[in-house]
Amino acid sequence: MMEDAMHNENIGWMPYLVALSQVLGVAALAMTGAWFAHFRGGFSWDGDQQFNVHPLCMVLGMVFLCGESLLVYRVFRHETKRATKILHAVLHVLALFISLVGIIAVFQFHKKKKIADLYSLHSWCGIATFTVYIFQWIAGFILFLVPGVGLTYRSQYKSIHVFFGLALLICSIATSLLGITEKLLFSIPDQYSMLPSEGALANSLGLMLVAFGLVIGYIVTRDEWKRQPLPEEQALSIDFKTLTEGESPSEP
Amino acid sequence: MMEDAMHNENIGWMPYLVALSQVLGVAALAMTGAWFAHFRGGFSWDGDQQFNVHPLCMVLGMVFLCGESLLVYRVFRHETKRATKILHAVLHVLALFISLVGIIAVFQFHKKKKIADLYSLHSWCGIATFTVYIFQWIAGFILFLVPGVGLTYRSQYKSIHVFFGLALLICSIATSLLGITEKLLFSIPDQYSMLPSEGALANSLGLMLVAFGLVIGYIVTRDEWKRQPLPEEQALSIDFKTLTEGESPSEP
Repeated sequence: MMEDAMHNENIGWMPYLVALSQVLGVAALAMTGAWFAHFRGGFSWDGDQQFNVHPLCMVLGMVFLCGESLLVYRVFRHETKRATKILHAVLHVLALFISLVGIIAVFQFHKKKKIADLYSLHSWCGIATFTVYIFQWIAGFILFLVPGVGLTYRSQYKSIHVFFGLALLICSIATSLLGITEKLLFSIPDQYSMLPSEGALANSLGLMLVAFGLVIGYIVTRDEWKRQPLPEEQALSIDFKTLTEGESPSEP
Repeated sequence: MMEDAMHNENIGWMPYLVALSQVLGVAALAMTGAWFAHFRGGFSWDGDQQFNVHPLCMVLGMVFLCGESLLVYRVFRHETKRATKILHAVLHVLALFISLVGIIAVFQFHKKKKIADLYSLHSWCGIATFTVYIFQWIAGFILFLVPGVGLTYRSQYKSIHVFFGLALLICSIATSLLGITEKLLFSIPDQYSMLPSEGALANSLGLMLVAFGLVIGYIVTRDEWKRQPLPEEQALSIDFKTLTEGESPSEP
């Protein structure tokens, strides 16, 4: 049975899709950087370019790193559960920190320029997504990382955690698309309809983000590509079952 | 074994979530109608209000009806597979027809008003989504409805069809959010930042669409809520297996 778990692995063309997701993700980051560096004056914390930190940090934190963290359990399938979990958490520490910087950037910029906050659909979706992300972060930390806590609730919560993980990535991408549209209609309201290179680049960035989400969504929803427990983990979980349920495992 | 399939059903709070999805979907439709009836002069095919047909038809066709068709196999779990399949197809005939009307409305309106076509991220996402929807429609029709065709490919294609079904709903919702943002920035560019009632209504419509997508996404991704084959279908599939594989079923 244990060998089955190892040999049953039929990950098919998952590696190619993972490679594709990396190409799409890095391309999206490069296009975000290029858009704001080439057309919008580059990046700085103090001054008129502070806004530009916002899209770069959000695409890096809430889209790219969150997407990467979803892939961890598929890609590192022969490492221990503990190691993959730590990598997943580290990616989310980075994602949280970088997105926070991005959110602070836009609020500070608005304050300096006396621009109203939180009126647009982009901002509503962004705040809603980030709030749910914080709750997901806290719940995930308590239930999966604090030792001993929530062993009983872990399996119940896991399916919720997995669902909201992908849902949050999708909402982050949708919010990014809204941000792209807003930025273009604010910056080049009269030229956008003639599709100048800035518009074409930003639209293509939008499609790249959608493609990134589609590929990651496909990978993580294939049941047959899910990480199988390692032999020693399987043994452990049987021991645990024996201890808690007071039954001997059906096969010794 | 057959009784198991009937008794194993543990659909939990699925009925409540289905009810919630209906409330959200109908609310989104009502809000779309209210927005364009109350703030944008109502609906007409000839004249300045032709544009308004576009958002109403797209939300009805590509979001509401497509969402409903995803729920068919969860809600009508004790009807025959054939009946649920026909209902799924009928909903998609309606969705396709209504969305086509919505797409024609906006192209005709642009032509009359000499507005450029297909330059915005909204239009790119919309055309991409609708194109993939047409392919999904054709592939689904050939493989699942034309008798005898593709019995061999059906099970392979099914997981792709299911994935793209939900992905298309999500892309339709994201495209709707882009449409809402565009429409507000075109119609009330100077007032939007003071969040007048039109802006608040349209933003809320956006959140309603997101909530509709989240609830439907949650329902259809619960493995334990998937439709179980009816006893007679199970018997049939065993017969079919016996015929094709030349084996007798393990239990008579």
